[in-house]
Amino acid sequence: MNTLLDHKLKRLTADILATCDADSRTHRIGEMFLPSRSRIVGLLDLLQQLLFPGFFGGKKLTRENTPLFIAHLLVQIADELAEEVYHCFCAHRRCPDCTDTAPCRERAIDLAVQFLEQIPAIRETLAMDAQAAYDGDPAAKSIDEVVYCYPGYYAITVYRIAHALERLAVPLMPRIMSEYAHHGTGTDIHPGAEIGKRFFIDHATGVVIGETTKIGDNVKIYQGVTLGALSFPKDERGRVIKGYKRHPTIENNVTIYANATILGGDTVIGEGATVAGNTFLTQSVTSDSIVASETPKVKVKTRRRKGARPSSE
Amino acid sequence: MNTLLDHKLKRLTADILATCDADSRTHRIGEMFLPSRSRIVGLLDLLQQLLFPGFFGGKKLTRENTPLFIAHLLVQIADELAEEVYHCFCAHRRCPDCTDTAPCRERAIDLAVQFLEQIPAIRETLAMDAQAAYDGDPAAKSIDEVVYCYPGYYAITVYRIAHALERLAVPLMPRIMSEYAHHGTGTDIHPGAEIGKRFFIDHATGVVIGETTKIGDNVKIYQGVTLGALSFPKDERGRVIKGYKRHPTIENNVTIYANATILGGDTVIGEGATVAGNTFLTQSVTSDSIVASETPKVKVKTRRRKGARPSSE
Amino acid sequence: MNTLLDHKLKRLTADILATCDADSRTHRIGEMFLPSRSRIVGLLDLLQQLLFPGFFGGKKLTRENTPLFIAHLLVQIADELAEEVYHCFCAHRRCPDCTDTAPCRERAIDLAVQFLEQIPAIRETLAMDAQAAYDGDPAAKSIDEVVYCYPGYYAITVYRIAHALERLAVPLMPRIMSEYAHHGTGTDIHPGAEIGKRFFIDHATGVVIGETTKIGDNVKIYQGVTLGALSFPKDERGRVIKGYKRHPTIENNVTIYANATILGGDTVIGEGATVAGNTFLTQSVTSDSIVASETPKVKVKTRRRKGARPSSE
Repeated sequence: MNTLLDHKLKRLTADILATCDADSRTHRIGEMFLPSRSRIVGLLDLLQQLLFPGFFGGKKLTRENTPLFIAHLLVQIADELAEEVYHCFCAHRRCPDCTDTAPCRERAIDLAVQFLEQIPAIRETLAMDAQAAYDGDPAAKSIDEVVYCYPGYYAITVYRIAHALERLAVPLMPRIMSEYAHHGTGTDIHPGAEIGKRFFIDHATGVVIGETTKIGDNVKIYQGVTLGALSFPKDERGRVIKGYKRHPTIENNVTIYANATILGGDTVIGEGATVAGNTFLTQSVTSDSIVASETPKVKVKTRRRKGARPSSE
Repeated sequence: MNTLLDHKLKRLTADILATCDADSRTHRIGEMFLPSRSRIVGLLDLLQQLLFPGFFGGKKLTRENTPLFIAHLLVQIADELAEEVYHCFCAHRRCPDCTDTAPCRERAIDLAVQFLEQIPAIRETLAMDAQAAYDGDPAAKSIDEVVYCYPGYYAITVYRIAHALERLAVPLMPRIMSEYAHHGTGTDIHPGAEIGKRFFIDHATGVVIGETTKIGDNVKIYQGVTLGALSFPKDERGRVIKGYKRHPTIENNVTIYANATILGGDTVIGEGATVAGNTFLTQSVTSDSIVASETPKVKVKTRRRKGARPSSE
Repeated sequence: MNTLLDHKLKRLTADILATCDADSRTHRIGEMFLPSRSRIVGLLDLLQQLLFPGFFGGKKLTRENTPLFIAHLLVQIADELAEEVYHCFCAHRRCPDCTDTAPCRERAIDLAVQFLEQIPAIRETLAMDAQAAYDGDPAAKSIDEVVYCYPGYYAITVYRIAHALERLAVPLMPRIMSEYAHHGTGTDIHPGAEIGKRFFIDHATGVVIGETTKIGDNVKIYQGVTLGALSFPKDERGRVIKGYKRHPTIENNVTIYANATILGGDTVIGEGATVAGNTFLTQSVTSDSIVASETPKVKVKTRRRKGARPSSE
């Protein structure tokens, strides 16, 4: 590189540093304990190995080596999870003078263990979710196929992890996890949503399940379904108000077909109801309803066939 | 880590092992020959280098080194593909006492070679697909741009690989491949679908093409299009019936615009037809039709302009 | 491998080489200076570290080490960016006899520096975009959450980089970048689009913003929104015409809710307008309009409850 270039890059370094001084929103300089998105994603991979022993991670497990494998994996996860939980608390507090104190560390370890103690129950729930996918999808050839490759199943797996951490009030980490799953699957389930057993999402892309959604047991939803907010009330200073129930409630045994949109915190889809594809719904429906937007009339015109040039239409 | 923590993790190990004994759906312990999602994804990368010599993989190919490059790549792919095909058969059979037998291995090698012998034909088809994307998209600056970065083109590439493996009755692998492409592109093409030449998917996100869909030549589809099932008949025990034709047939020269939904195994979109964006269709249409859902009337109200606080709407 | 297999793979090598001779569209043999998708993606990671010092990359930055960190990072990015810009020019020209000339190299370095000099301004814009996401989304707990994990925010970040490169007329690279972001986020923003300040995309999946779209300041859009083309005029040889304005104009302070579709190069959404979810719009609307497709009537039927077998619906 030549001198002129060298000079330009030096000046540019100074310019970028000046923007850091001017605006604190887009840097984290001088904060020592930051969470790492890549380490949190690494944790998800380890957790997947723990939740589905033998399926992922390329290790051949036998009755003999499995206890050691799980014991080791648990120690590794507990250690790394506690470290990242600690960093998430630090980042959340924005404490520039934060010192590495024993009580904070202990609290993080305690939360990591409280989370891990829920793994057996999460495993049970995930077995039921896999069964629901196999039972509900004519294209599913085996439960293995569901566990190995269904994106909706991966999104639900990450949701069940992230939701447990959200309930333990760990900041930042649940959302980093759920957005990682969103990234891979096109399914955006906020970790704050409450979702029952035997949940199945088919095709997955474009599904949005908002923060304050409640979903019962045996619910089946398809690609493109939005369970969203109807409006965003603002405070007297014009800022959206955070935290109130603004997403729908879906009761047990409901099926919602592709691209349906259900909005509003007071909207309740009663037990056993079926919502047809493309339905736009902002009102409650009672149990066992079959709900559909009136299908817009389809108009068919016929084009005159062109003789010589079929490709030029 | 302290003694109490150590004790908790030990007990937790036992609890997790107990859930493995209780439910076989979410572990693969004691099965020695499992397919690996990551090795199958690695194969896709090698196949992409074979299908588009010089484009991917960072190797500078010349007339001189290309023959050696392809010969080496073929041996590597044949070897790894045979290994994974073998594992997919093992996983599918769920044979706990499976021994590593020569006939199984030979069958896997044979299928890998049968697949590889289709590469020249697949390359020809992919050249036509790339041309169709360039011809059909005003935003495409070159065919290179299509091959390097169009997500719909990547989804079609993986589909053509997965479909060839599906036709050879390799279990699990085709679906793992197609869901990997779905993961990256938002386009969910089941490997069982039958798709003709010069196929183009623009923008890609949210496209769903079901297992028993048939698509002719010169078909163009846009983001959010679903070619799906209308209903899922169940057997006398309430389980969905698998394997019958439940997705539509799209004939030659059809264009389907964004977010159209076409459902049902008896639904046929006749040759040369155009389906408008957002159309919801569960009936057949004849050749050269132009089909559109009646566009819902648009209502426009005007808000009174607020004086001082435009941001507080 | 046995002799028969060996023989088959040899013949197959010859067959694949023959397809390379026959069709130049799907190989890049004999072209020495090709861009690399993986190196371009690597550049995006480095640029993310430069745009958000301390957030990404796992380095703990202090007031003391930050100047050195930024200076080093700038040199590395300038170097690698110049190299890839150079390759993109080579690939674009398709010059088989291209020799590695000094003027081409210098032009690439010059463009890389011109791009990097825009980093302070891009950082300012991104700070405003992050604020807009936090202000506009009741589920956003902190600006950190937006920067760390909002997919729409990542898509906008990559757009602002790719758009700057597009304006410098670098071929291929902007589209490779934007399709990488599309891949991860489900948001497809063409680098040619023009987008103002404080732009927010919530939930991100399925958003399509076409090449000739113009978007003002303070615009908010939701999942599944398409800003697309209405039709593709063709020339006298039946090929789509490239390059004319075919996507809509969105003025300042507009909000467009989920799954709305707005099409056409003459369509203007006037300042302060709100477009409701699922609206299908091909006409302009004046300032401060509230626009909605008439919601199709919802039909509700009630299914008779079955006594003993609720799961067999």
